[in-house]
Amino acid sequence: MITNEFYSQANHGPFQTYDLGNFTLEDGGTLRGCQLAYATHGKLNKKKDNAILIPSWFSGTSKIFEQAYIGAGRALDPEKYFIICVNQIGNGLSSSPHNTAGPGGMGAFPKVRIGDDVRAQHQLVTEHFGIAELALVVGGSMGAQQTYEWAVRYPPMVKRAAAICGTAKNTDHDFLYTQTLMDAITSDPGWNKGYYASNADVREGLQRHGRLWGVMGFSTEFYKQEVWRGLGFSSVDDMLVNFLDFYFTAMDPNSLLTQAWKWQRGDVSRHTGGDLKKALGRITAKTFVMPIDEDMFFPPRDCKAEQKMIKGSEFRLLKSPCGHLVVTGIDPNFLAQVDEHLKELLAIAV
Amino acid sequence: MITNEFYSQANHGPFQTYDLGNFTLEDGGTLRGCQLAYATHGKLNKKKDNAILIPSWFSGTSKIFEQAYIGAGRALDPEKYFIICVNQIGNGLSSSPHNTAGPGGMGAFPKVRIGDDVRAQHQLVTEHFGIAELALVVGGSMGAQQTYEWAVRYPPMVKRAAAICGTAKNTDHDFLYTQTLMDAITSDPGWNKGYYASNADVREGLQRHGRLWGVMGFSTEFYKQEVWRGLGFSSVDDMLVNFLDFYFTAMDPNSLLTQAWKWQRGDVSRHTGGDLKKALGRITAKTFVMPIDEDMFFPPRDCKAEQKMIKGSEFRLLKSPCGHLVVTGIDPNFLAQVDEHLKELLAIAV
Repeated sequence: MITNEFYSQANHGPFQTYDLGNFTLEDGGTLRGCQLAYATHGKLNKKKDNAILIPSWFSGTSKIFEQAYIGAGRALDPEKYFIICVNQIGNGLSSSPHNTAGPGGMGAFPKVRIGDDVRAQHQLVTEHFGIAELALVVGGSMGAQQTYEWAVRYPPMVKRAAAICGTAKNTDHDFLYTQTLMDAITSDPGWNKGYYASNADVREGLQRHGRLWGVMGFSTEFYKQEVWRGLGFSSVDDMLVNFLDFYFTAMDPNSLLTQAWKWQRGDVSRHTGGDLKKALGRITAKTFVMPIDEDMFFPPRDCKAEQKMIKGSEFRLLKSPCGHLVVTGIDPNFLAQVDEHLKELLAIAV
Repeated sequence: MITNEFYSQANHGPFQTYDLGNFTLEDGGTLRGCQLAYATHGKLNKKKDNAILIPSWFSGTSKIFEQAYIGAGRALDPEKYFIICVNQIGNGLSSSPHNTAGPGGMGAFPKVRIGDDVRAQHQLVTEHFGIAELALVVGGSMGAQQTYEWAVRYPPMVKRAAAICGTAKNTDHDFLYTQTLMDAITSDPGWNKGYYASNADVREGLQRHGRLWGVMGFSTEFYKQEVWRGLGFSSVDDMLVNFLDFYFTAMDPNSLLTQAWKWQRGDVSRHTGGDLKKALGRITAKTFVMPIDEDMFFPPRDCKAEQKMIKGSEFRLLKSPCGHLVVTGIDPNFLAQVDEHLKELLAIAV
């Protein structure tokens, strides 16, 4: 257990935590006194039918939704909906390697799967809030993986689903990309099999990890059109250092590894013996599949193939030269597109 | 200076070497007794107007052209043409860090640019062979960078040019990708600033470098369609280990770094004060610009933008689910397309 001030209420709050008790994981581990961190916006109505759940993506927290996606008059409107932004296990706010006391923390933190997160979130939503149906589950990237898992695992409960730049079953290519992210960290001698005194000991590995995001997380057009200028950077190097390095070197290496391992194995067909069509056939939610045109590792055609397996679903292509990382909110035009699609989805009677 | 049996006549021969003497480089270094390794196929005719020059790509040698591209009845037909396959400086056969004696070898090997290679090749072609014009210069990837450099630097000499999956001016995105390849190697403590006893000391770094090729060198469709099965592999892991690891861990780390540094800086606009249009405007060769549809770092639209700046040039899109690495000859259908376009190009009177 070590201190990392990045994961503080000051940086990511206000957020609450829910004690899941001893939470047993798919792969056999147990998180004792597992904490699920979450933030809510708006009020749950009396019928308890206005709840929206937003799971977090890789390296992200609940805070980014408050900052970029939620607001009065927008699709995710706290004046109409009760919005629960939940932090995935291992993301640094919920139970994670660096904040877990005892022998099961740091390098011994157990393997967590997307399915574990969704069971944990189900417990929060049903036991803590007493909610029986969700008006919408929406998430980007690993948040989309969790969204699909929700829609397949608890069909009657999910009325609408929106999967932004993510897949229901991770691809071999994406698995390999994620492995390079992990290898960039674990190859740093400072990582020391997960037992370091500070994330600063793994600075070089975290930096290399961030640079891989620079290649695959944006797009060739992001650089060609010099989109980074509009973000306030004076050069590509300035952007790499003061955006990607700044962002990722502050994080906990084991947290990123826990999430990456989980990301690699996102796959709803685990419920159906590997039959993806059968798994997606279980979905009853009105579903929008929303990939990003320039995404280099969740390409639209992969998402399209899955969309075709979901009854009544719609394919809604989002456009931005930024590529995958636009999901962090760096392109207002992208956010406007998301809002438009989500408003339409929320207006559909189900 | 160390021994690496990968770069042997047994593996890459037969090849000859030409002594360039003391070759002074653009960035100020001098390669003393610089050796340029090359292989020829076919015979130079009396008019000396049937010569074709093929520069090598990153990590490749002259051998691959003999194996995959040259043959009777094919576009690159040794019964019609005198074909010179030349190894770029630093590629392990020509003068390179590991085979350079004295203080200027290994980690102190000087910086080499695309322009240096083309000057060296010009010396070989004119002084050694007495050739005043080339019927065709054709190359893939870094070979395309050299092809563009030839066409801009020596316009009257280059009658035809074919740039396969490469650019005249490297992009910021591609620079960053190449940097991750380099960082994967230099982050291995065994690299030791370029002073290792054997490439085996850098095995992990070379392997990480190879895995990045796995992500960016192929394409998402290569994995989605499981194209690797047709190459004789039983799983993605089998392919990664017995193709990419096998290929790259045999190589010399400093050699890859020398080539990567050169690749990052490929830019014909160095001749025109940064004006790419002006540089490409110098080209008088009949030029085919031939990107690969699924290429993740030399994308067709980047090549298209350059093609538009070259008078009388044609855009010829090559198709393969393999992505960039198809250039190594792993897709017969791709090779057939290349042959067809090159035959057409060679048939054009200039």
